[in-house]
Amino acid sequence: MIAILKKNADESAVSHLVSWIEKKGLEAHVSQGTDELIIGLVGDTTKIDPFLLESMDIVERVQRVSEPFKKANRKFHPTDTVVDCGFGVKIGGGNFQVIAGPCSVEGENLIRIARRVKAAGATMLRGGAYKPRTSPYAYQGMGVEGLDLLCEARAELGMPIVTEIMDPRDVQIFLDKKIDVMQIGARNAQNFPLLKEVGKTQTPILLKRGMSGTIDELLMAAEYIMSEGNDNVILCERGIRTFETRTRNTFDLNAVPVLHYLSHLPVVADPSHATGYTRYVEPMALAATAAGADGLEIEVHDDPSHAWSDGAQALTPDMFDDVMRRIQIIREAITPEAGA
Amino acid sequence: MIAILKKNADESAVSHLVSWIEKKGLEAHVSQGTDELIIGLVGDTTKIDPFLLESMDIVERVQRVSEPFKKANRKFHPTDTVVDCGFGVKIGGGNFQVIAGPCSVEGENLIRIARRVKAAGATMLRGGAYKPRTSPYAYQGMGVEGLDLLCEARAELGMPIVTEIMDPRDVQIFLDKKIDVMQIGARNAQNFPLLKEVGKTQTPILLKRGMSGTIDELLMAAEYIMSEGNDNVILCERGIRTFETRTRNTFDLNAVPVLHYLSHLPVVADPSHATGYTRYVEPMALAATAAGADGLEIEVHDDPSHAWSDGAQALTPDMFDDVMRRIQIIREAITPEAGA
Amino acid sequence: MIAILKKNADESAVSHLVSWIEKKGLEAHVSQGTDELIIGLVGDTTKIDPFLLESMDIVERVQRVSEPFKKANRKFHPTDTVVDCGFGVKIGGGNFQVIAGPCSVEGENLIRIARRVKAAGATMLRGGAYKPRTSPYAYQGMGVEGLDLLCEARAELGMPIVTEIMDPRDVQIFLDKKIDVMQIGARNAQNFPLLKEVGKTQTPILLKRGMSGTIDELLMAAEYIMSEGNDNVILCERGIRTFETRTRNTFDLNAVPVLHYLSHLPVVADPSHATGYTRYVEPMALAATAAGADGLEIEVHDDPSHAWSDGAQALTPDMFDDVMRRIQIIREAITPEAGA
Amino acid sequence: MIAILKKNADESAVSHLVSWIEKKGLEAHVSQGTDELIIGLVGDTTKIDPFLLESMDIVERVQRVSEPFKKANRKFHPTDTVVDCGFGVKIGGGNFQVIAGPCSVEGENLIRIARRVKAAGATMLRGGAYKPRTSPYAYQGMGVEGLDLLCEARAELGMPIVTEIMDPRDVQIFLDKKIDVMQIGARNAQNFPLLKEVGKTQTPILLKRGMSGTIDELLMAAEYIMSEGNDNVILCERGIRTFETRTRNTFDLNAVPVLHYLSHLPVVADPSHATGYTRYVEPMALAATAAGADGLEIEVHDDPSHAWSDGAQALTPDMFDDVMRRIQIIREAITPEAGA
Repeated sequence: MIAILKKNADESAVSHLVSWIEKKGLEAHVSQGTDELIIGLVGDTTKIDPFLLESMDIVERVQRVSEPFKKANRKFHPTDTVVDCGFGVKIGGGNFQVIAGPCSVEGENLIRIARRVKAAGATMLRGGAYKPRTSPYAYQGMGVEGLDLLCEARAELGMPIVTEIMDPRDVQIFLDKKIDVMQIGARNAQNFPLLKEVGKTQTPILLKRGMSGTIDELLMAAEYIMSEGNDNVILCERGIRTFETRTRNTFDLNAVPVLHYLSHLPVVADPSHATGYTRYVEPMALAATAAGADGLEIEVHDDPSHAWSDGAQALTPDMFDDVMRRIQIIREAITPEAGA
Repeated sequence: MIAILKKNADESAVSHLVSWIEKKGLEAHVSQGTDELIIGLVGDTTKIDPFLLESMDIVERVQRVSEPFKKANRKFHPTDTVVDCGFGVKIGGGNFQVIAGPCSVEGENLIRIARRVKAAGATMLRGGAYKPRTSPYAYQGMGVEGLDLLCEARAELGMPIVTEIMDPRDVQIFLDKKIDVMQIGARNAQNFPLLKEVGKTQTPILLKRGMSGTIDELLMAAEYIMSEGNDNVILCERGIRTFETRTRNTFDLNAVPVLHYLSHLPVVADPSHATGYTRYVEPMALAATAAGADGLEIEVHDDPSHAWSDGAQALTPDMFDDVMRRIQIIREAITPEAGA
Repeated sequence: MIAILKKNADESAVSHLVSWIEKKGLEAHVSQGTDELIIGLVGDTTKIDPFLLESMDIVERVQRVSEPFKKANRKFHPTDTVVDCGFGVKIGGGNFQVIAGPCSVEGENLIRIARRVKAAGATMLRGGAYKPRTSPYAYQGMGVEGLDLLCEARAELGMPIVTEIMDPRDVQIFLDKKIDVMQIGARNAQNFPLLKEVGKTQTPILLKRGMSGTIDELLMAAEYIMSEGNDNVILCERGIRTFETRTRNTFDLNAVPVLHYLSHLPVVADPSHATGYTRYVEPMALAATAAGADGLEIEVHDDPSHAWSDGAQALTPDMFDDVMRRIQIIREAITPEAGA
Repeated sequence: MIAILKKNADESAVSHLVSWIEKKGLEAHVSQGTDELIIGLVGDTTKIDPFLLESMDIVERVQRVSEPFKKANRKFHPTDTVVDCGFGVKIGGGNFQVIAGPCSVEGENLIRIARRVKAAGATMLRGGAYKPRTSPYAYQGMGVEGLDLLCEARAELGMPIVTEIMDPRDVQIFLDKKIDVMQIGARNAQNFPLLKEVGKTQTPILLKRGMSGTIDELLMAAEYIMSEGNDNVILCERGIRTFETRTRNTFDLNAVPVLHYLSHLPVVADPSHATGYTRYVEPMALAATAAGADGLEIEVHDDPSHAWSDGAQALTPDMFDDVMRRIQIIREAITPEAGA
């Protein structure tokens, strides 16, 4: 961290600042910049609040040099992380996977949908048993019964299951059921007790970006999980909130290459939530693939108009077949050879 | 809810839609609009996903008629709610209160700061014992020990205490300590398990708007708490996330009169988080008062440069004295008589 | 347009509203909805301000039925518009074109860069002669001399040139020079005198979305041009402004399929401005192609570190070769046959 | 400007960068920071594109030290600027003024409204003759005839008139009519040819913040005007675009104290456009006053339901009387003495 001091900063104020920094356990390297003094802070800069430093009278600007995320940072882990989701399904480092299934687990249609998405090439099955809904009066999910239906589908089809966890008190149930991938939704992207709790497991975590979460905050949320010991984190771009209302969210696909640049963790994209309308899911699934995502999460329902949630954005199995065929071609377009 | 159908909607498709609506347990009133058909949905429209309805082929637009929040809605409760926070401190319905104190409970300075803010006219004491921090490496709060320090200050000064709760597993501790007001922070504005859990108590809840939360979502979060039986909800505007970076957040003071228009619940504003810099807290505290807020939450620290969190936005006790004096005048300016 | 009245709307107030509507030259069709009255407004609803209508005491909500854009609306022009940019280069309706070249026209390097991008497959040449810069102290462009250099490059290479116009007083110069495509930049997306002025020509217009422009506002800007008689409008998504700072803008690729759904006009995407960093341009160029864009606009410079503007986001000619090769494969992936 | 280099930056690359900087006419001061090299750039840093610098391989981060605005910067002009708008009406430096009148000049009602707002205490008259409308089919203003009506009202009432200019070709007309204050609207906040053109006059300019304009961009727009020689710039916060839809814009009142901190120019706030609804104008007018604005711009109409534009946000003259009375009290609350 570097503090650039105001011109004409008083000498005694400077030495006061230096001793303040040293009391926090860091070293303060003062160097004459151009026509201003620069103080370099060496040591554990997480102990310094940059806003506070910048608010001090003699300080003009503060600039972080190092990112606040460490374990998620590609600088310290240049090699892509590959997360093993079970059943031989690996994601990241060149391994591309499609997670598909209904928004909510609703009953026996789960297995029907699961068979279709598997046949089309999906390698992981999604379905929500605990549903975060804006309204307390909306359907809240089947709960444990939904988890059981997912486990039955897994047993028949031999594919990992992905399902959302909202409450730190539910982690034990998810462990008991051996849920393959626990999903943290956008609304819990900064639910720190939950992040810490899933961080104590070794279960892969599909971590969604918050609706107003910056890319850095997503990586800090990953850091919460990793700092507790769980390195199996899969990042997910699912759209952010902006002023545009023609789609449910604004799909920030820039985040895919940016996350790959900043971090070694796999990056998945969710075109279903990012658009909110069935008719836009296919083009945006293809776009996400072309942007270099390591996987997609797509909602598929065999009777969208009767889905218990988010039917507006579900693909039918036939549409999903179409998407999967095109994805193969796009994956070829982004191999190193294709540019040669 | 009203569905406006596309021109030339096929008759059999219309009757299919009508029966779909009826299967959901609602009535469908078809009326010829201008040159399009309109279907009015009567009954429990929470069972209908408006996005799904709008995604149907024959539907052009869907318009909610009634707001999805009921218990928080002024239409059904025209009179202002007054929340009793204990020690005779009431907020709402003309009762204006200032909550002040340090960002974090840090130790024995709490009581020193508390005495000063009380002397200046604050009627409630704030201080964080559990701190939601973007970084897992940042200070996470004193926990139970912090609650105890707050309780000691309360005992000496006879004023209610306000402190943040982040984890549904902590509700019992907060009840045991008889915390007067439980604060739900911006990051937990859609942490539904937490909202439900505090909804099962009768403790007043200071509910902060999420960083990307719409006004409607804030009211839906209140609805989560109220639908569990706790009507003692105080809403709080604390700034939203936008593209502007000169301040920590963008203070949406429009939300104060909008929330008063839509809801009967008291509305508090937090100029400390909404600006992020000490130098902007005073003008924005006055602005929030002039906008008609029922109270303010302000961070005060007697040694901001050594605060354990958010020192950049803390007022000193002397600055706080100044703010409190000006607030009195502004409160007069917005009485009914002042306009006459 | 439909106005949904409040429950218990007073009968005399309703008839007052009806006569107000009729005075504006529209018909008001009153129909009993479910338990509220609905007024359908028939006629030229552009004469009604929906905000004003909604602000009236007895009105609960107002819902537009028809979009305010007419000439740009696919409903009234179901077939894709194909814009002829000269030299046989057509865009839209299945015709895909890549516009490439330096951000600014700087001198003789223009022709060198132009040869390279043409060789790689670009079909149109871009270069700015008039530069909109945030700072008055930054380089403002070569002006007429820059237009002349573009014309020389056109003469040699036989490809249309695309260049930005910022001032309605410059239209005549652009016409005199027979500029093939006039570009309207993001900052002028609602510069209505400029839109009207270029609307009086028949020159194709590359119309960029404003930084905070909604999709509907982009279409209304197109409508301004078209309402003056120029139907040759090419829409361009170039990133919007959000809270994310890791990229220069947030690339809203959702806009590509949304614009295709709402409008018949061709849609181009600009991954250079939408990301702001060279390293992200390639993946996002591919993503835009996969999303179904009718073309791309990409900045290419043979010595980015000496570019006079926007060197940070320029591709080198070698990088551009690589992108062009991959684009071909992606174009195949989105043909109708590829899904079969 | 300071460039912080990556750890292990290659020595030859560093000297290459140094010579690149020097070729731009600046000096490069290299200093060993903590464990990274820092290059301080001395000289005219407007010649350096910070994005480009940051995109270079060996550069980790770039930090501006000085703001890009000079003439608008309080650092170089510590004293508040007072703009003289004619008729003895001065704004800034403790002088508070209220600009009021109809959104559009519509005809003879202008003088009726003008008399009322003057009687209530407004000191400047507003009214739009050239209207920037999202739709080309909406009312576009009376043009010159509207200017004449404003001039007549001015002649009768002896108060300066404020009216919007949208087209650089209209400057001469505005000068001929001796318009007292030319307003630049939000949509033209980065219309640089227009800014330059009004910068060549000495007429006071009321410069509105763009819908997605940062505070720094607003100051850079002021800089455009001032760099041409016109120092009579009044800044105006009128709401920015965010995700919130319950109001027309989000009123960023934080901008008032931030602009006062960064700049010496007067700051006006426009609660009419910032809220969009009559019922919210009064509380937000009071809030803006309490935040320290040097003036307000408020739309007043004596028959809002028949206003030709923006009737939804107009105050009636009676409402305006009420606001003006309360403003007086709030102005007292923010005098230095009130805090003592």
